[in-house]
Amino acid sequence: MSLKEALNWRSATKSFNGETIEQEKLQQILDAIRMAPTSSGLQPFKVFVLTDKEVREKLQPIAWGQQQILDASHILVFAAWDEISKERVDSFFEYNNQIRNMPSSATDAYRLNLLDLLSKKSTEQQFVDASRQTYIALGFGLLAAAELKIDATPMEGFDTAALDELLDLKAHGLRSTVMMALGHRDHENDWWSKLERVRRPHEELFVEI
Amino acid sequence: MSLKEALNWRSATKSFNGETIEQEKLQQILDAIRMAPTSSGLQPFKVFVLTDKEVREKLQPIAWGQQQILDASHILVFAAWDEISKERVDSFFEYNNQIRNMPSSATDAYRLNLLDLLSKKSTEQQFVDASRQTYIALGFGLLAAAELKIDATPMEGFDTAALDELLDLKAHGLRSTVMMALGHRDHENDWWSKLERVRRPHEELFVEI
Repeated sequence: MSLKEALNWRSATKSFNGETIEQEKLQQILDAIRMAPTSSGLQPFKVFVLTDKEVREKLQPIAWGQQQILDASHILVFAAWDEISKERVDSFFEYNNQIRNMPSSATDAYRLNLLDLLSKKSTEQQFVDASRQTYIALGFGLLAAAELKIDATPMEGFDTAALDELLDLKAHGLRSTVMMALGHRDHENDWWSKLERVRRPHEELFVEI
Repeated sequence: MSLKEALNWRSATKSFNGETIEQEKLQQILDAIRMAPTSSGLQPFKVFVLTDKEVREKLQPIAWGQQQILDASHILVFAAWDEISKERVDSFFEYNNQIRNMPSSATDAYRLNLLDLLSKKSTEQQFVDASRQTYIALGFGLLAAAELKIDATPMEGFDTAALDELLDLKAHGLRSTVMMALGHRDHENDWWSKLERVRRPHEELFVEI
């Protein structure tokens, strides 16, 4: 599907038909998420891919009882680093230099400058920074899904603290930010996708200078 | 270009060749940004499209002297609502209902629930929420650009307060969040795009449950 068609085809599916999506398409969507750019390349998050029925039954009340949690094929939970610690930054650059076959001296100035900037931010602000990166990946995942004609719904309506507890995120130094349901829309019952698309007109959203 | 090719082709271009991108491709990228989903559909941001040379010369020192600011074809500045006020929410639903030809009663319960949730959040938290939405749009814009073989660089390295002042964002109830440079890479000098791509392996980023 072309980009333009994909943009018009997609909508936040409220009603899925329960079908499981093809493994190959799932992999392509996850790969779009994995390849999304992030600030300094840190990829400061993990993505939990939920298929387990019991976990999803526990998740549903946490997500305001929304039916997508059970009817979607997969639920992705984006969880950002709760702090961008020196240890995490150092570990990233070690990995980066290993892949690129570069000595640590090649990135030391950049790394130290980044650590200096981070040291001026509170832990909460570091989490806010990391959270934003999960939304770039969310955007890549949503658009990739549309091009593969897989329905995808971004979901912010859930109790983050309860979800963090359900997935034991604190122990992993993570906090949930947003979810994405994947599957196929239930054509009969997905009233939402039949509504006229509402977007602000170009001239209201963009300011040319 | 296919999704997979686009994901592998794109990189955060550090050196642009100064060429202006085709107007039609720019429009397609802006349209991807415009069509990106946002929480409750609010689209709580504006995007400033900078071509003016003088403004960009003033922007460069604010953006740590980065050369892309001058050499890119266009600089997009994403600016989120500084608060998600009742007035803004009401105005969105009015627009929404007008487009969908629905009475306000059709969305009142949803709108009032949303306002209630927002009333429990500080102005700063409302801005944080709005900021995240700009990153979905950024993701859509970046991926759309890649598929059109337009180089695009997400840029967080700038002094937000100084940029807000340069564009007089406070007067519009906005605060800058992230920028995106658009153009064509300078093949000779863009050393960055020649480096091996670094992404965490699938099994490190994704947790299957």
